[in-house]
Amino acid sequence: MFLPILFIFSLLSSSFASVQDFCVADLSLPDGPAGYPCKNPAKVTVDDFVYSALGVAGNTNNLFKVAVTTAFTTQFPGLNGLGLSLARADLAVGGVVPMHTHPNANEVIFMLQGTITAGFISSANTVYLKTLNKGDTMIFPQGLLHFVVNSGKTTALVLVIFSSPNPGVQFLDYALFANNLPSELVEKTTFLDDGQVKKLKASFGGTG
Amino acid sequence: MFLPILFIFSLLSSSFASVQDFCVADLSLPDGPAGYPCKNPAKVTVDDFVYSALGVAGNTNNLFKVAVTTAFTTQFPGLNGLGLSLARADLAVGGVVPMHTHPNANEVIFMLQGTITAGFISSANTVYLKTLNKGDTMIFPQGLLHFVVNSGKTTALVLVIFSSPNPGVQFLDYALFANNLPSELVEKTTFLDDGQVKKLKASFGGTG
Amino acid sequence: MFLPILFIFSLLSSSFASVQDFCVADLSLPDGPAGYPCKNPAKVTVDDFVYSALGVAGNTNNLFKVAVTTAFTTQFPGLNGLGLSLARADLAVGGVVPMHTHPNANEVIFMLQGTITAGFISSANTVYLKTLNKGDTMIFPQGLLHFVVNSGKTTALVLVIFSSPNPGVQFLDYALFANNLPSELVEKTTFLDDGQVKKLKASFGGTG
Amino acid sequence: MFLPILFIFSLLSSSFASVQDFCVADLSLPDGPAGYPCKNPAKVTVDDFVYSALGVAGNTNNLFKVAVTTAFTTQFPGLNGLGLSLARADLAVGGVVPMHTHPNANEVIFMLQGTITAGFISSANTVYLKTLNKGDTMIFPQGLLHFVVNSGKTTALVLVIFSSPNPGVQFLDYALFANNLPSELVEKTTFLDDGQVKKLKASFGGTG
Amino acid sequence: MFLPILFIFSLLSSSFASVQDFCVADLSLPDGPAGYPCKNPAKVTVDDFVYSALGVAGNTNNLFKVAVTTAFTTQFPGLNGLGLSLARADLAVGGVVPMHTHPNANEVIFMLQGTITAGFISSANTVYLKTLNKGDTMIFPQGLLHFVVNSGKTTALVLVIFSSPNPGVQFLDYALFANNLPSELVEKTTFLDDGQVKKLKASFGGTG
Amino acid sequence: MFLPILFIFSLLSSSFASVQDFCVADLSLPDGPAGYPCKNPAKVTVDDFVYSALGVAGNTNNLFKVAVTTAFTTQFPGLNGLGLSLARADLAVGGVVPMHTHPNANEVIFMLQGTITAGFISSANTVYLKTLNKGDTMIFPQGLLHFVVNSGKTTALVLVIFSSPNPGVQFLDYALFANNLPSELVEKTTFLDDGQVKKLKASFGGTG
Repeated sequence: MFLPILFIFSLLSSSFASVQDFCVADLSLPDGPAGYPCKNPAKVTVDDFVYSALGVAGNTNNLFKVAVTTAFTTQFPGLNGLGLSLARADLAVGGVVPMHTHPNANEVIFMLQGTITAGFISSANTVYLKTLNKGDTMIFPQGLLHFVVNSGKTTALVLVIFSSPNPGVQFLDYALFANNLPSELVEKTTFLDDGQVKKLKASFGGTG
Repeated sequence: MFLPILFIFSLLSSSFASVQDFCVADLSLPDGPAGYPCKNPAKVTVDDFVYSALGVAGNTNNLFKVAVTTAFTTQFPGLNGLGLSLARADLAVGGVVPMHTHPNANEVIFMLQGTITAGFISSANTVYLKTLNKGDTMIFPQGLLHFVVNSGKTTALVLVIFSSPNPGVQFLDYALFANNLPSELVEKTTFLDDGQVKKLKASFGGTG
Repeated sequence: MFLPILFIFSLLSSSFASVQDFCVADLSLPDGPAGYPCKNPAKVTVDDFVYSALGVAGNTNNLFKVAVTTAFTTQFPGLNGLGLSLARADLAVGGVVPMHTHPNANEVIFMLQGTITAGFISSANTVYLKTLNKGDTMIFPQGLLHFVVNSGKTTALVLVIFSSPNPGVQFLDYALFANNLPSELVEKTTFLDDGQVKKLKASFGGTG
Repeated sequence: MFLPILFIFSLLSSSFASVQDFCVADLSLPDGPAGYPCKNPAKVTVDDFVYSALGVAGNTNNLFKVAVTTAFTTQFPGLNGLGLSLARADLAVGGVVPMHTHPNANEVIFMLQGTITAGFISSANTVYLKTLNKGDTMIFPQGLLHFVVNSGKTTALVLVIFSSPNPGVQFLDYALFANNLPSELVEKTTFLDDGQVKKLKASFGGTG
Repeated sequence: MFLPILFIFSLLSSSFASVQDFCVADLSLPDGPAGYPCKNPAKVTVDDFVYSALGVAGNTNNLFKVAVTTAFTTQFPGLNGLGLSLARADLAVGGVVPMHTHPNANEVIFMLQGTITAGFISSANTVYLKTLNKGDTMIFPQGLLHFVVNSGKTTALVLVIFSSPNPGVQFLDYALFANNLPSELVEKTTFLDDGQVKKLKASFGGTG
Repeated sequence: MFLPILFIFSLLSSSFASVQDFCVADLSLPDGPAGYPCKNPAKVTVDDFVYSALGVAGNTNNLFKVAVTTAFTTQFPGLNGLGLSLARADLAVGGVVPMHTHPNANEVIFMLQGTITAGFISSANTVYLKTLNKGDTMIFPQGLLHFVVNSGKTTALVLVIFSSPNPGVQFLDYALFANNLPSELVEKTTFLDDGQVKKLKASFGGTG
């Protein structure tokens, strides 16, 4: 008795077949201001919407004692155009996510484990500093310098959420000391001493 | 005497020739988060901006007694990037546009003919219900369940306007009963009885 | 047996009670860049989402032989923040909607009745001109000069759709001739003759 | 020697004092299409950016065996205008987050604990279904029906992330059965049987 | 001692390598609603972000005594997706930038040299008129008719700033008189006299 | 004969009177995520759209040998909601605009006078460095560290353009050294030496 429904269904299907519920990135094509072109929806499967790498602890066996694992569009193409991305930060005892900014996204962190001291600095140069424990959430508004330090006695694990699939990141030390920006210009524009600049350029692999 | 104007005109032309007043979709290229790439403006004609299929009554000779004709980007590529799309719904006496949502657009309907009962349900589960006659306009906010029933004694004709060229649509019964979502999961997540689910799966062509 | 559901319901209600599905304009408060502040949702009724004035023919007994009835936010506050607004244009035989632009919205018209000649002009000064009949749809991209002339033998009725609840409108003759912009400046910037400017200033109530 | 810096600092301060890095919601004022007006920045403290309620397990002692705790603007005003919000869902063994949509946000979930079966249904009525374990991430695109079932043998804990501080939510059963939408209309627009509708209306507290 | 930093650096690099800080237009690919696809970031150099043509005076030896030099995306591809573009206008004594609109951008001018009379007309047909000197800034809101006249005794030089890399421009006289829009339609929709229309069509190269 | 036009004019006026062409900030009301509420349009005059302070040289008699004069919404309320703002930077010989970011805006500078060395650093830590002369334009993408040094032999004057009326600014030294962020945290998150941090805290007025 309900067979005719199938008729209208196919009718509706032909109209709505083009509807774009999602736009899984086709990373083989060039990016654009709003994101990547969409993978053919007919080839999209549930695995385009599932990502497991954030479940795996990063290797914190380095001087920062930190590992950051990202789920941005290039790692997790299903996020393309959705206004969201994620990362996880593992911090061994004493670990540090150094001073940095995200030029294109607000950030919220959720504490999965451990104790950290987190802070950001506003345009008015006010410091917003807090000790966070498991279950706490904290906001870092877009583009402002912020950092996280493992101030507890166990490994800390932080889930990081961004308001863009393309948050960007600029680590202060890498920006200043890991490239060929002449030391003289670094000094003139940061008021750091020449010795300090050269020491850090040596550590971060910079020249000039 | 005004010939020099032509000179500056060509000057201005060379500057402004690239200006994008519109972006008629080139449907041969992949879609993106903001819409399709633009057809070469030099090949755009007035017919890219005109569409006539909404003037033709749909076939309501089906169990729903309804026909929906859409003018989305894929049918009317001139709408690409413009933040608008349209459709028409023909409802024979007793016809129904079943419970559905548009994930990506607000909707406004304009009554062209007849009498309908229309309603939507908010996040607070409040019902907004109204009988509409020719000339009436009603809003259905984005993503909320809504429906239209021809409650009059003549054919009803409704012009449908969306705030996106890609509104999307999800008909409740098709979403639940026209695919392979296991009956057990349908029942567990909707609290419908097993008999009810199986009956509707049979009608809508679902399996599992 | 299902009573406990009511418990979780009230729990969810307290969480979601603040959710904003819509933002009916509170016109008693000042407007902002994104629209008006929202009326208290508890006081919103279905009548905030329904508007009937577009069903009533306007009075075309004037020199233009045209009447335009708008459903913008200030007339239909339910549209606030939804990215859409509407209008109807009644054109008696020979009626004209004169050359104008909408600074803030794309426009789509849907022919309800009669025959019109409609056109718009692009940044490249190309004319896109078409005769439209009942059921036809035509696009006028944002900010471009366009017009409609009743070129048929009966009253024409046009439904007008905008991609903003605040499309704006600038009628060329009113902008040039209905205010105190000095004739000398009008002439210098439009290349119209002095006699022409003064004649139209007299007609449209301008001074200077 | 560096004292003069303080001079330019105060100069810059007077210019930049008004800069809006964030806009903590002042919930005492009416909401708007882009969010709430901002709390006076001078009164903002770090506690406006920190929220701890997501660290506390909800009470799953109900028929759904689920608890959802939200961090939307009204609970966590620091999120205002930032394009993000969060929630946590606790699911006891056998617990269910029933079929629902978020009209205004994309969603990503991150598995904190346990095993779930999660799914969403697209406009094309395709089912995207997956079993997720600790550390897995899954996307539910905006406005599409989706659900989560605890399919494991332990409590499941899910962190939920939305691409809007105001995602909205519409639970299917509450929308259909927890209000005064007449049973006849429910049946006509969903094709559910009368007995089924009345049974669920009784359970969810609906009338009509 | 700091060598391990290099390790984490390469780790972070692999994650963030895809980050899109900018999207220099690849003009060889088709434009889209949000702008052009991005040039491969690896091939971007500082010269993609620098443009010198606005430093060169235009040739004002024409009847308008004006030259407009634009830096839109097609001239300066680095602006793609950035929400900004620029132009310079040179006006000889008595020079005029005739009545025009920008369909897609707000405009701010900054006076580099000389004295001008500038004005715009609002939707309410109010004239906002001002004499500007070196160092003055004035706003012309999106889509509204505006003009600039060199009302001083020296060359005037104006820097023009738009809130879009694709502002568009519609010069009134070119739109009305430089194409094949039939004189009869021009007259009917602008109330200009037939002689006036034909005279200007002759000057601006129009037909019909 | 044209008097009836006045009739339709008043008709149209009543419809369009509410149209929002602009939204001059009412700074007496609280800001919001999209900007300030609008000043009553009836009280707006041309002076709300004109600003002259950018024409006045700032006082560079300080250690930086620089003066920055801003035209943001709080100084120039007419910019509210328009997606644009401006500033001017005066740099005496040897003057420096120190390393800083704008969290919420792309920036374009236009050289009005003199010679500068300008640079920005990308997320990939690449340096984009250029010497600019009068008439040159350079882009600094949103949120990235950048700086300007007067590398010429005369005063340099730079017009600065932002893609937001609320660009924000974070000067690196003020953020790190002009507040109470504990030296220990500064050192741990920037790898600067203790002596360096304390020296700059003393210079910039910081504590801790």
